[in-house]
Amino acid sequence: MARARTGQLVESNRFQMFIVGVIVINAITLGAETSTVLEAKFGPLLTTIDHLALAIFTAELAARLYAFGWKFFKDPWNVFDFIIVGIALIPAAGPLSVLRSLRILRALRLVAMVPSMRRVVTALVRSIPGLVSLSGLLVLLVYIGGVIASNLFGDTGDPRFTGLGPTLLTLFQITTGDGWSDVMRDLMVQKPYAWIFFLIYLLVGTFTMLNLFIAVVCSAMQEEVTVPAPRSASHDDLLLQEVRALKEEVRAMRQNA
Amino acid sequence: MARARTGQLVESNRFQMFIVGVIVINAITLGAETSTVLEAKFGPLLTTIDHLALAIFTAELAARLYAFGWKFFKDPWNVFDFIIVGIALIPAAGPLSVLRSLRILRALRLVAMVPSMRRVVTALVRSIPGLVSLSGLLVLLVYIGGVIASNLFGDTGDPRFTGLGPTLLTLFQITTGDGWSDVMRDLMVQKPYAWIFFLIYLLVGTFTMLNLFIAVVCSAMQEEVTVPAPRSASHDDLLLQEVRALKEEVRAMRQNA
Amino acid sequence: MARARTGQLVESNRFQMFIVGVIVINAITLGAETSTVLEAKFGPLLTTIDHLALAIFTAELAARLYAFGWKFFKDPWNVFDFIIVGIALIPAAGPLSVLRSLRILRALRLVAMVPSMRRVVTALVRSIPGLVSLSGLLVLLVYIGGVIASNLFGDTGDPRFTGLGPTLLTLFQITTGDGWSDVMRDLMVQKPYAWIFFLIYLLVGTFTMLNLFIAVVCSAMQEEVTVPAPRSASHDDLLLQEVRALKEEVRAMRQNA
Amino acid sequence: MARARTGQLVESNRFQMFIVGVIVINAITLGAETSTVLEAKFGPLLTTIDHLALAIFTAELAARLYAFGWKFFKDPWNVFDFIIVGIALIPAAGPLSVLRSLRILRALRLVAMVPSMRRVVTALVRSIPGLVSLSGLLVLLVYIGGVIASNLFGDTGDPRFTGLGPTLLTLFQITTGDGWSDVMRDLMVQKPYAWIFFLIYLLVGTFTMLNLFIAVVCSAMQEEVTVPAPRSASHDDLLLQEVRALKEEVRAMRQNA
Repeated sequence: MARARTGQLVESNRFQMFIVGVIVINAITLGAETSTVLEAKFGPLLTTIDHLALAIFTAELAARLYAFGWKFFKDPWNVFDFIIVGIALIPAAGPLSVLRSLRILRALRLVAMVPSMRRVVTALVRSIPGLVSLSGLLVLLVYIGGVIASNLFGDTGDPRFTGLGPTLLTLFQITTGDGWSDVMRDLMVQKPYAWIFFLIYLLVGTFTMLNLFIAVVCSAMQEEVTVPAPRSASHDDLLLQEVRALKEEVRAMRQNA
Repeated sequence: MARARTGQLVESNRFQMFIVGVIVINAITLGAETSTVLEAKFGPLLTTIDHLALAIFTAELAARLYAFGWKFFKDPWNVFDFIIVGIALIPAAGPLSVLRSLRILRALRLVAMVPSMRRVVTALVRSIPGLVSLSGLLVLLVYIGGVIASNLFGDTGDPRFTGLGPTLLTLFQITTGDGWSDVMRDLMVQKPYAWIFFLIYLLVGTFTMLNLFIAVVCSAMQEEVTVPAPRSASHDDLLLQEVRALKEEVRAMRQNA
Repeated sequence: MARARTGQLVESNRFQMFIVGVIVINAITLGAETSTVLEAKFGPLLTTIDHLALAIFTAELAARLYAFGWKFFKDPWNVFDFIIVGIALIPAAGPLSVLRSLRILRALRLVAMVPSMRRVVTALVRSIPGLVSLSGLLVLLVYIGGVIASNLFGDTGDPRFTGLGPTLLTLFQITTGDGWSDVMRDLMVQKPYAWIFFLIYLLVGTFTMLNLFIAVVCSAMQEEVTVPAPRSASHDDLLLQEVRALKEEVRAMRQNA
Repeated sequence: MARARTGQLVESNRFQMFIVGVIVINAITLGAETSTVLEAKFGPLLTTIDHLALAIFTAELAARLYAFGWKFFKDPWNVFDFIIVGIALIPAAGPLSVLRSLRILRALRLVAMVPSMRRVVTALVRSIPGLVSLSGLLVLLVYIGGVIASNLFGDTGDPRFTGLGPTLLTLFQITTGDGWSDVMRDLMVQKPYAWIFFLIYLLVGTFTMLNLFIAVVCSAMQEEVTVPAPRSASHDDLLLQEVRALKEEVRAMRQNA
């Protein structure tokens, strides 16, 4: 029937190759659009290619929806494609103009199309659940640090500590270790004891981050490191039984003798 | 009796949920207080909620103390709660005003209430003892580096090296690798050979840090990586005994024959 | 014959030692050339040594080519030497003058000559294939981030975001975590919401990098960590057969008795 | 005899405790000397304590030398103490005045006295040999990068690239990833293609560093991660022999029968 044939078509290697090609070309054109020179020269062409690519993606998606019906949404990768293309279809005007710059996200479809990348991303995503508690802890630490910091340093007039928002951003910066000393030294002019906060925060934060990191490594290890399966105990028991049976045999013989 | 019933109450899921709720709300209000806008609008309300939350925590703690008596202090998590709430009860006036900003630490009670976070933190704390020696070594290195640096660079008038305190802080900064090159280049104007100190300090320090880090990873590994238990030697010995016993049997028979 | 004898010569320990010596001396002279003082004093001498070294390398390579014929190119290390020396032979004039500064790459031949370094580099190179997918993913992320960033921030006039090229370079910088906060704060003057992009990009990028890193560790682990080989099942089967055979023996006896 | 008794004395727990005490006090006084205030107040006292400590260390060392004779130098830790105290004994005047600031190195003797720290450092030192090749490779990379960089950027007049020395220092800074982007952007004003060098250098350098790091982890792993010892094959062979011997017994019996 039509459905089945459509399914075969969209699943066919040649079709997949074609889509990958479209994705790559589209990614390149979207990159070219960022260059004012190229935009000035080939603006209309680039836009046409972009629209064409979007049309192809939409058609493909429609075909797959038609072919697999609701089963389509069972595969997270399909949902992923659906959202990506969906975003592209929203008329990006006025306040939504930022969506225009998100069109490039279509390039992420490449991940869904290339098996090896697909595996990698699947592995990444799988490792996330194990990190929820630690991430939650980290967020909690940053929040607590943020409230304390904006209480302690809010009155210094340092724009990096006026209000909770900027403070949280600054603490995130400090957690990444980028330019934390400048932040501290600026504060210490007015608050000589600011270093105490930074010292504690860095030690606690880094230590938690480190363990978060280790959690990732460990979870990865357990899948990766191939450890020999312990010899099946059953085998040994079997041997033991044999020997015992044998002993019985001999004992029996002896009585006979 | 009353004690038992109180115990059941404070341990009940619903009550725990309630406390978690209070903690979260309190954390939010304390965050809101940092915003001058919200403070101006809802100042009194926020303060009331804060006092209310504190009252609830105190009552809860009292209930648990009453229910479990001195056993209460056997669980480190209880001690933790006790201290957190205790800090909040100290009248934060004059010099102690800094304590006001520590009220948010109550949010840490969330860690004690949420089992998964509790496990994570327990794991973190457990990994600390194994790090004592290496941390001690690192502290020793920073101290030695600090004394040497303030001897070598103290006369440059660089505020980052005047006195042991600032020097130690600067070396901590250098150990985190943040802006160490600026520090060095500023010094090298007056002390062309400052780079020797920085090179040695960075190599030794980083190498020690690295090993400190590895110590954490390894200790984590040993718990995480599931290695097959070696087959119980006892089992094999058993088998060997059986066989030997059997041989005796047979030898005996032979003599008989 | 001549070929065989040449082969023995170039493979002989003494000859190898000699070449290593030439490489080291050449590396030193090339380093000396960078000093205007030494260049002024011993310029001609340094140049002579350099030409001499190149001549020796060329002669050696010719000898090995003559000795091993086309087999020569089977060993990647030979190809490596061939390219290195080849680059040095290209007349470095006019536009190609940059090649002059690449002469020092000959020092890399040391890696090919010293067995232990050779092993290390071989290990490094071997670990690359396993990283292709993740590296590809990272490149894709940087590209996507670059297009989005130059769309969002291109109109700020910040030289770090004018055009795709500079933007990609800036994102690479951000990925290494060097001075990303300065970049962000500069942007936030005009684009208050720039932090959203940086937060997402850093979290996603760092997480991918982290996993890329883990992939390297794991692949290294599997080679490094010595896990006990599971006892050859064959051995156990052997034992079991023995015991069974024995039982048969005894049973047979019993029938006889 | 005297020697034996001296040996017992210096090895006695109480004596060791005493020395540890002296080391700690000395470390504190040396730290105090860095403070101009304390120096002004207790200058003479601090100096006296310092001389006293040095005297004690010298006496102790002499005692140990007398007690153990040349065997003394068999223990690397003794050699370490010997050097540390030796440095302190050199009259630190004129050009050697820098040695004065190295007196604090005596605090490192603490490492030799505290068993746990001793173990840690022994582990650190043991892990070094395995890193020689990779470190050598890294040094080679920095050197090659330095020569290339000073050839390419030497004529920009940037003080960070004038001459090989400063260039190597700059490349070390870049390898630690501290402020490398500033260095690059400053260069790109005159050399628009400088980013190519930085990109390649960072990728190669970081990748090598990463593997150097992994080498440390792996070597640490192999000692740390407790992997079950494979059951001694000898044990199994023993069992097999037993069974075979037994079979012989039975066969013999059978012939008899």
